[in-house]
Amino acid sequence: MTVKDVLKNRCTIRKYSDKQVSDELLNGLLEAAARTSTCGNMQLYSVVVTRSEDVRKKLMPSHFNQAASQAPILVTFCADYNRFNKWCLQNKAVPGYDNLESFVSAFVDTVALAQTFSLLAEEAGLGICYLGTTTYNPKLISEALNLPKMVVPVVTLSLGYPDEQPALTDRIPLSGWVHTDTYHDYSDSDIHAIFDYKEELPENKEFLKINNKETLAQIFTDIRYTKKDGDYFSEQLIAFLKEQGFLK
Amino acid sequence: MTVKDVLKNRCTIRKYSDKQVSDELLNGLLEAAARTSTCGNMQLYSVVVTRSEDVRKKLMPSHFNQAASQAPILVTFCADYNRFNKWCLQNKAVPGYDNLESFVSAFVDTVALAQTFSLLAEEAGLGICYLGTTTYNPKLISEALNLPKMVVPVVTLSLGYPDEQPALTDRIPLSGWVHTDTYHDYSDSDIHAIFDYKEELPENKEFLKINNKETLAQIFTDIRYTKKDGDYFSEQLIAFLKEQGFLK
Repeated sequence: MTVKDVLKNRCTIRKYSDKQVSDELLNGLLEAAARTSTCGNMQLYSVVVTRSEDVRKKLMPSHFNQAASQAPILVTFCADYNRFNKWCLQNKAVPGYDNLESFVSAFVDTVALAQTFSLLAEEAGLGICYLGTTTYNPKLISEALNLPKMVVPVVTLSLGYPDEQPALTDRIPLSGWVHTDTYHDYSDSDIHAIFDYKEELPENKEFLKINNKETLAQIFTDIRYTKKDGDYFSEQLIAFLKEQGFLK
Repeated sequence: MTVKDVLKNRCTIRKYSDKQVSDELLNGLLEAAARTSTCGNMQLYSVVVTRSEDVRKKLMPSHFNQAASQAPILVTFCADYNRFNKWCLQNKAVPGYDNLESFVSAFVDTVALAQTFSLLAEEAGLGICYLGTTTYNPKLISEALNLPKMVVPVVTLSLGYPDEQPALTDRIPLSGWVHTDTYHDYSDSDIHAIFDYKEELPENKEFLKINNKETLAQIFTDIRYTKKDGDYFSEQLIAFLKEQGFLK
């Protein structure tokens, strides 16, 4: 399949069949994914492929036991300076990567790798789901996976053969997120033109009714992504970045 | 081309021909890229496509005028809560995304989008380079592109038709970065097994000679990615995240 074809029909998959994903297939996908661009060719990432039921059961609560976290395989993509630092120290070089900028560079590399892997997996007939909970509970994940200092989990993908075929989700129009030359800020009527269709989607109308809310936006601010949670998980994340050595 | 084929031969491109990239092609790639997973389907990103010579000249110093920044097109991928917040406020909802966790979620979405776009561009015969400088100088970039509050540039891709065909770069072996079930920390001999081949590559030997260094690792720690720079750019990044509304 072409890259474009893979994308055209892709959907996040949260329910997986019992069919096993072979090591051979999985390693082939990871090997191919490693061609992704990486800052200074430093490959500042590690990937933990968890099949063991024991370890997966330890990971699930960090992902709030969401449906997708029950997948046969959880793949945790980590920003990793532990390996690189060890190499430096072995070679009479003093690494100075205990700062946020270094973490952010590794973060970009790691997410790019995860996204390439996702597309390769989907091309191979597998399904994936991004578990956004990874940066909510990095400490729990780190404990379950024995992550050392200078390693931070940033993306988890659940992985397996799909046992569902969800409908394509909507996207806002291209003109709503692409800017020419510089950023052109949004007027009130721009915002209407970009978002109004969402209120009319049957699935969103249903969503409003179940949650007893007046507008779709309130479902995001009051239920799904609240300030209280955001502030709380930010504190946790900052504490963890300090613990792992990337923030003072 | 399959996703795997695109990856097999891909290389970062830093030199571009004069051949124009049509709007039609570019918009088709961006449209396709939008099928990438996005947290809660919030699409917390904006993409600024800069062709204008004027604006590109303003951007180049933020990318230290590196070769790739002279490309005919610079595509800046930004984590963006400005649009989403405006929609919330228009719909009687109070957004609470002024925290690091919210930024990090948008960051993941934005990098994943950029990476999908890269693969689509390469499939279409274009070349790209990740400009890692984007998180070094976010304030300069933000001034050149008129980014409002709650918007942070995280990835810039230079884009155009390739005018060079660089050799494939090396990668460490799969066993060096993939872990089974949990993270297995590296022994001294693991580090040798993973990295030693790098010292033997002719391009790296040349690199050592030019830079008058004893080991390859010292080129990273003493010249390319120093503690002094990392600490300085971290301060800048933290100040900018505060300014944009994501850190207190």
